[in-house]
Amino acid sequence: MGEVSNKQVFLRNYVSGFPKESDMYLVEGKITLKLPEGSNDVLLKNLYLSCDPYMRTRMNKVDGPEVEGFNAYILDSPLTGYGVAKVIESGDPNYKEGDLVWGFTKWEEYSLVPSTQIVFKIEHNDVPLSYYTGILGMPGMTAYAGFFEIGSPKKGENVFVSAASGAVGQLVGQFAKLTGCYVVGSAGSKEKVDLLKNKLGFDEAFNYKEELDLNAALKRYFPEGIDIYFENVGGKTLDAVLLNLKLHARIPTCGMISQYNLTQHEGVTNLSNLIYKRIRMEGFVVSDYYHLYPKFLEFLLPHIREGKIVYVEDIAEGLENGPAALVGLFSGRNVGKQVVVVARE
Amino acid sequence: MGEVSNKQVFLRNYVSGFPKESDMYLVEGKITLKLPEGSNDVLLKNLYLSCDPYMRTRMNKVDGPEVEGFNAYILDSPLTGYGVAKVIESGDPNYKEGDLVWGFTKWEEYSLVPSTQIVFKIEHNDVPLSYYTGILGMPGMTAYAGFFEIGSPKKGENVFVSAASGAVGQLVGQFAKLTGCYVVGSAGSKEKVDLLKNKLGFDEAFNYKEELDLNAALKRYFPEGIDIYFENVGGKTLDAVLLNLKLHARIPTCGMISQYNLTQHEGVTNLSNLIYKRIRMEGFVVSDYYHLYPKFLEFLLPHIREGKIVYVEDIAEGLENGPAALVGLFSGRNVGKQVVVVARE
Repeated sequence: MGEVSNKQVFLRNYVSGFPKESDMYLVEGKITLKLPEGSNDVLLKNLYLSCDPYMRTRMNKVDGPEVEGFNAYILDSPLTGYGVAKVIESGDPNYKEGDLVWGFTKWEEYSLVPSTQIVFKIEHNDVPLSYYTGILGMPGMTAYAGFFEIGSPKKGENVFVSAASGAVGQLVGQFAKLTGCYVVGSAGSKEKVDLLKNKLGFDEAFNYKEELDLNAALKRYFPEGIDIYFENVGGKTLDAVLLNLKLHARIPTCGMISQYNLTQHEGVTNLSNLIYKRIRMEGFVVSDYYHLYPKFLEFLLPHIREGKIVYVEDIAEGLENGPAALVGLFSGRNVGKQVVVVARE
Repeated sequence: MGEVSNKQVFLRNYVSGFPKESDMYLVEGKITLKLPEGSNDVLLKNLYLSCDPYMRTRMNKVDGPEVEGFNAYILDSPLTGYGVAKVIESGDPNYKEGDLVWGFTKWEEYSLVPSTQIVFKIEHNDVPLSYYTGILGMPGMTAYAGFFEIGSPKKGENVFVSAASGAVGQLVGQFAKLTGCYVVGSAGSKEKVDLLKNKLGFDEAFNYKEELDLNAALKRYFPEGIDIYFENVGGKTLDAVLLNLKLHARIPTCGMISQYNLTQHEGVTNLSNLIYKRIRMEGFVVSDYYHLYPKFLEFLLPHIREGKIVYVEDIAEGLENGPAALVGLFSGRNVGKQVVVVARE
């Protein structure tokens, strides 16, 4: 194959405050669908792209040393992120034409990337391919590692999940129910609250936007306190949770989406509760846990096939709708995991 | 022995803001130096009382469920706290007249307490008895458990300690040096900084009151970042530390003395660094670690005897000087571990 057109989504400028669609722009690029001579890279056809909250932090202009995996995007270049792709040609003998893979790719139709950016080859195709951007991909592993490895849940414990209908939260709640925990989720609309209670099996759920006093809301749902708080949002929610923890509670700290668009983060004032209550608050990044992926699939695939774990996706059609989908994450417009379809095969 | 006079320190009122000497008052009580018939309690002659920052939190009027060990003091009753005492009479066969013990006692000359309030019998008398309020007592075990058990230090790591010349901090620094770490302490006066550098073996030390920009100060002392932050103070110091941590750093969270006197705690804004840097922040309470006390003594006593670990105490003479000594903790007036001598034998 020779040179073909390659639609791409570029970052126009670094962002402060909430991102807008106009912070990105579409480019009609070109790419030669042939690996350069001697290359060890892989040439990918991108199928599904994942919209993830951490991408916002990469839109900041960062001065000083950067943390691997969170480095700032390069202006006037494609965004990068997780996705599902098909291998067109591979210079790495571990992959061959036609393989389906998930890992780090770029926001464009075709990408040439180092094969080290592939996280895993997709071996199970009896589930929707888009699942490898969500339940069977990075967010799924995030929920699994955070809840089981860091949260150390025990049957009968009380679990609170914020951003509970999101890509990660909806799974944490279902994992908690499988473990025999009581689980409550917070989300930002009535539709999401209904989803949590009626489809995702949460014991209770509430709309944090309708609670004037988050501390009182948590006391209502957790009169005996919280054992595990799966932290996705930070800020005021975290501060209220700190007043409602049980002794030896754990806070797997996955994200703080409420803070990413603020130029001055909200101050958290109740941290001294960490001491009296002997709390462990632990930040984690999913890539430190990918060695558990085979075990994770073994655990999760049967539950998916038997319908015991479900997954809600919000699918945007077409790369050109990617910027709006990504921006929508930060106003909570998405319901469930936000995916962008570039091509279905 | 019959009834004798028993000087006591009572709490006059609950405290908001900084405590004052006048929040406490002296009482000339009386006590019968004979156990009541059939009692299982112990009758103690108090020798040394310990002034500890956590006592401030017990001067708050707390509504709602309390945390064991941090329950509010009772007004017009003696303060309680750690101390070294001699057994006068014991209704518990584990103790006998003349035994020296350390544990929870009251701020008075003689106390009748349940024997369960004794933490340990004192078996080694070739070191100053006051050490059992500090290096060989609760603060020593706090430094040991927090640094070794929660901090998981490795040779060559970078350690930062706040309130570094205090009862706990001065030991954390010396433990870090024994482990082969680089250690920097912060304290609130030139005298304390000199002590840290010249007597306690810290690699570097600084006066936080003279640093307009704590972030810049930490970058100066830790150009490559901090592996372990032993947290004693909270607030602004914690917020600056969060900007200067290395990947997989640990924050043993022992206390937040800078916050205890504030009616509105300072907001901590940089917690999202816990995520990117995979940080574990873990609060702890020393009483969860007393099972390690024999191992701790085995480790520490030889170092004390050989002069390889030293300990700075600030001794106030007489129970009547107890309130001033306790209040002084919160303005940093003490240099080293603050002890109150009630009687020397």
